[in-house]
Amino acid sequence: MTSAGSADLLVVGTGLIGTSIGLAARRAGRSVWLSDVDRDHVRVAASLGAGAPLDPTTARIGMVIVAAPPSVVATLCAQSLRAHPDAIVTHTASVQSQPQAEVESLTQDLGRFVGGHPVAGREVSGPAAAAPDLFVDRPWVLTPTSRTDPGATEAVAELARQCGARPVVLRADEHDEVFARVSHVPQLVASALAGALAGLDADAAALAGSGIRDTTRLADSDPHLWSQIATGNADAVAAGLRDVVASLMEVATALEDGADTGAAAVDRLVRRGHAGRALLPGKHGGAAVALSTVDCMIPDSPGALARLFTDIASAQINVEDLRVEHAPGAPAGVARVAVRPDERDRLLAALRVAGWTAAAGAGETL
Amino acid sequence: MTSAGSADLLVVGTGLIGTSIGLAARRAGRSVWLSDVDRDHVRVAASLGAGAPLDPTTARIGMVIVAAPPSVVATLCAQSLRAHPDAIVTHTASVQSQPQAEVESLTQDLGRFVGGHPVAGREVSGPAAAAPDLFVDRPWVLTPTSRTDPGATEAVAELARQCGARPVVLRADEHDEVFARVSHVPQLVASALAGALAGLDADAAALAGSGIRDTTRLADSDPHLWSQIATGNADAVAAGLRDVVASLMEVATALEDGADTGAAAVDRLVRRGHAGRALLPGKHGGAAVALSTVDCMIPDSPGALARLFTDIASAQINVEDLRVEHAPGAPAGVARVAVRPDERDRLLAALRVAGWTAAAGAGETL
Repeated sequence: MTSAGSADLLVVGTGLIGTSIGLAARRAGRSVWLSDVDRDHVRVAASLGAGAPLDPTTARIGMVIVAAPPSVVATLCAQSLRAHPDAIVTHTASVQSQPQAEVESLTQDLGRFVGGHPVAGREVSGPAAAAPDLFVDRPWVLTPTSRTDPGATEAVAELARQCGARPVVLRADEHDEVFARVSHVPQLVASALAGALAGLDADAAALAGSGIRDTTRLADSDPHLWSQIATGNADAVAAGLRDVVASLMEVATALEDGADTGAAAVDRLVRRGHAGRALLPGKHGGAAVALSTVDCMIPDSPGALARLFTDIASAQINVEDLRVEHAPGAPAGVARVAVRPDERDRLLAALRVAGWTAAAGAGETL
Repeated sequence: MTSAGSADLLVVGTGLIGTSIGLAARRAGRSVWLSDVDRDHVRVAASLGAGAPLDPTTARIGMVIVAAPPSVVATLCAQSLRAHPDAIVTHTASVQSQPQAEVESLTQDLGRFVGGHPVAGREVSGPAAAAPDLFVDRPWVLTPTSRTDPGATEAVAELARQCGARPVVLRADEHDEVFARVSHVPQLVASALAGALAGLDADAAALAGSGIRDTTRLADSDPHLWSQIATGNADAVAAGLRDVVASLMEVATALEDGADTGAAAVDRLVRRGHAGRALLPGKHGGAAVALSTVDCMIPDSPGALARLFTDIASAQINVEDLRVEHAPGAPAGVARVAVRPDERDRLLAALRVAGWTAAAGAGETL
């Protein structure tokens, strides 16, 4: 086996995740080979600098990263273990238990196999959207089997660190339980909410505000990919859906029981939601950071945002987060600029002096 | 009765909505009086230019807009009908049937009463967040009772137009059915999803990506307000919750039944979600507009966004929408810049020439 931190990598599957790993690993000085059933994807990934198209005659592969759709991950991992008898083999699927069980059924050679899931969390796909910074400060879950060589796990952890990620070791079932809750169930619930609109006529749908666009943004995702993920984590996803269903049914029943019962149930639901939101990681990891926001009206014209940010920069204020909201149907928009709470009033004053219509917005946590 | 389009207005309740109506009406040249149980709110609203604190000795009120929490709307409307016997009385609540029924039980004087709901859709509150443009190109639903004078409905429609809004006349029960689906149910579902995280330990929650933050953003809302809204529209909200529950249960059961059944159910759910998303209004009203996006890495330092937008403006490209995503835990961020599809490649080239790390992102509709 070659030295863990320097062995040639082979990325199998040059979509968003595979190409981003290639870019990050190349930046860390590693040699990267690329392969994909779609030769165009390999060409784009190679042209971006993610590595070289696999040349089997010269490549000496020390680690294979299978970055392919969940349904083919186990097969490709088992093939890779056979084809590269000295290489560590890992993958990047959003589910872990099922591919692990499949790999265990396909090969005895598990010492070199480590499940993996870099938590990149983007809704884009394809090599053109890849970025070497995709994994910076993000978790990268590793799920060694009971028979995985600890050195193999450490080698994949080293790759994760080279990509800027934080390796986190979990059992495959632990991974799947957590991701059912923080990813798979929210995904399906967003689709169910969006689907409930499908019966509305166009005039009624035109009454929708911006809140439901946020809440259902995940629903734009790929049905093939999500069929694979949900069935690959079926038990935990079904259990998570039943939990959400139970809390919604409690509220529905209480609302039908009368105003006082209904109000108490909604109050409990919303407060429990606050408690859950407070657990979500903040911008810089760890606890969420309280920020203040300023809402600034922006005209719908070239250069308006540039002028806004030039004015903010002139005041030497660091923007912590930013969102432009177009009220649906409105040609102008509102830029919600989040800053440290002690900068809020200074920002507001600076914008007003510069002629912007700006108002203090609600606090938010990032 | 004074002339509809020019009568003095009285805004009862100077929070975000009431103050914004005052600002917009003042800009349209109308006289506006302000009142609120919280005198500080009146002072802030008046100082922003939303009108003058109510002076009962000189005010000649032609229209009263009750912009107060749903639970007190009917009482305040009935009081206003008695106190101002020549005035048209309307309100701004997110629910319509229940206040209408209450007003009908409190007074016979319904010719001058019109329910109303300007669909402003912001998650901020208080007069300081008010903006005169809040209603521009937004729907403003009017729900006349069977006994409302058509002239009264037209007078409130004229106020809506003066605020830049599009008046839409619906029956109160029609309003409540639609808003259960496009607003109230999504709100409670976001809380239920966020609440499902409350059982996770901090290490597990730290694994969450950015998707669940979007999906649960509405869950930061006020439990008192939403208890009032949900109980004020209890039947339609309960029915809407049961619809979402039914589609989630279908998927949960199918996932437990086996991979093929599960995959088919998830595929149906996601595709139905696409159909619902396609109905949501676009940026300029009406049908959604297909846009292309470019993702650009931005360092977490003062002036980075200003430099980015200066570079975009130099290329004479109009930004249609913009979002800054911080991967949770990442100090740098990604600006997703949406432009017309025919501008995408030019933007990408311009950014790369200017030294930015930029990649074509997914398409999106606004």
